[in-house]
Amino acid sequence: MIIVGEKINATNRSVGQALAGKDTSFLQDLAKSQADAGADYIDVNVGAGHDGPDSSHALMEWLIETVISVTETPLCIDSDDPSVLKAALDAYTGDTVMINSVNAESDRLDAVGKLAAERGAAIVALVMTDEGIPPTVTARLEAAQTIMTHLSELGIRDEQIYFDPLVLPISVDHTQGMVTLETTRELKTRYPDAKTIMGLSNISYGLPNRSMISRAFLLMVVASGLDAAILNPLDKRTVTLARVADMLVGSDPGCRQYIKAHRKGMLAS
Amino acid sequence: MIIVGEKINATNRSVGQALAGKDTSFLQDLAKSQADAGADYIDVNVGAGHDGPDSSHALMEWLIETVISVTETPLCIDSDDPSVLKAALDAYTGDTVMINSVNAESDRLDAVGKLAAERGAAIVALVMTDEGIPPTVTARLEAAQTIMTHLSELGIRDEQIYFDPLVLPISVDHTQGMVTLETTRELKTRYPDAKTIMGLSNISYGLPNRSMISRAFLLMVVASGLDAAILNPLDKRTVTLARVADMLVGSDPGCRQYIKAHRKGMLAS
Repeated sequence: MIIVGEKINATNRSVGQALAGKDTSFLQDLAKSQADAGADYIDVNVGAGHDGPDSSHALMEWLIETVISVTETPLCIDSDDPSVLKAALDAYTGDTVMINSVNAESDRLDAVGKLAAERGAAIVALVMTDEGIPPTVTARLEAAQTIMTHLSELGIRDEQIYFDPLVLPISVDHTQGMVTLETTRELKTRYPDAKTIMGLSNISYGLPNRSMISRAFLLMVVASGLDAAILNPLDKRTVTLARVADMLVGSDPGCRQYIKAHRKGMLAS
Repeated sequence: MIIVGEKINATNRSVGQALAGKDTSFLQDLAKSQADAGADYIDVNVGAGHDGPDSSHALMEWLIETVISVTETPLCIDSDDPSVLKAALDAYTGDTVMINSVNAESDRLDAVGKLAAERGAAIVALVMTDEGIPPTVTARLEAAQTIMTHLSELGIRDEQIYFDPLVLPISVDHTQGMVTLETTRELKTRYPDAKTIMGLSNISYGLPNRSMISRAFLLMVVASGLDAAILNPLDKRTVTLARVADMLVGSDPGCRQYIKAHRKGMLAS
């Protein structure tokens, strides 16, 4: 499982404050601890609505400099604004990088797709339009096809694309778990060289024991073909289950990684 | 999820001792506690190798009388010996009953299939031959087809059949998790009216943190279409995850069962 560490996101209150106060050590600790916990990418998101000399562009550049001075773990550049993504890619010199994200909306898809093509970056593709998350498998697959067609035309290889099958809360519509599982399976069938990626928190919205529900869903989506997850790598139980899931789908021959992690005391019980 | 409580099995040392000593209250407590924890069936297995007046037949009859005097939860009659199954079905007068188990071996399949047909019983069908658990999906599906053909000829409806897709330890062969997941999915596709059932413990054989691995696999198999599990209903965390899995595959509209169980304090956190 490819793990994208989700912690450095301005929507986390403490991160928002650290960004506003340019709290270098707080953000560096958060980057380093996620890398140490096994994150394959570290997501960086400064949020929107910054103006003047502290524009989102400047803040993103500062954040990237801050993070890469303490870890070589690749970054996942996360913004709704293509121009912020461009500024971030200019500031970040790492060989491996992920861009988060595009959807089927064509202007944005074109602008961000070109950035990904130029850089050979991985690109997270939400299978939705600008009208929101479609409630059906069919509509999500249509969005995926739109994205795949356009990105292919820009010269992006299937391997670079990380489709996010998306999740709506199960408390609002009890069929949505299956919609995501089926979307994931269909994406892997239709685009076997592309990858799938997902955030976990949406599924459990409005229910008690949210983290348990999210972890349970992670296992189910891996059984349906999920390759990567955007999650909190500091949550030992979630990371343990991600390793177990890898082992159970055959990605850990001889269970070597699992047993090694156990011996190092890295697994939750 | 249909839960078959696995605790009353002579291979559990304390149960073996209780059977040998005719410890009525121990066994009745075990039956009642599983029923109270939400078991839909209670498995009863006296093991093999009993002789004389304490023959397996007599012991099974005694066990059934012992259990049904404290709970109306249906029984899952569990024996390798068709004549013990027959004695058990004669002793057990409940309307709903499950027989555990048959495989593709034809004599046994015929004998036990006839008992199930007469009684309208549910029947657990292991997708294997007498030569052992096949390592491939294809061979397991062939066994399933043999079983389905024979049981249909005996007048058994698909709805009565609970196919067990079987599990081999992931520590011995890292592909076996996927073999079981694919077998489960294929069984549900080929026989949509038949059910699927599984025990959990085999998958984690030889590895640390066995119970966590088994629980993780339960969630993954439910995502692939598992309807029922033979498990320990007194393990609150496992039962909680079974309820979560039901909710995530859409079997709990409005999340009502989940929320009700949460309010009653029945869920592990």
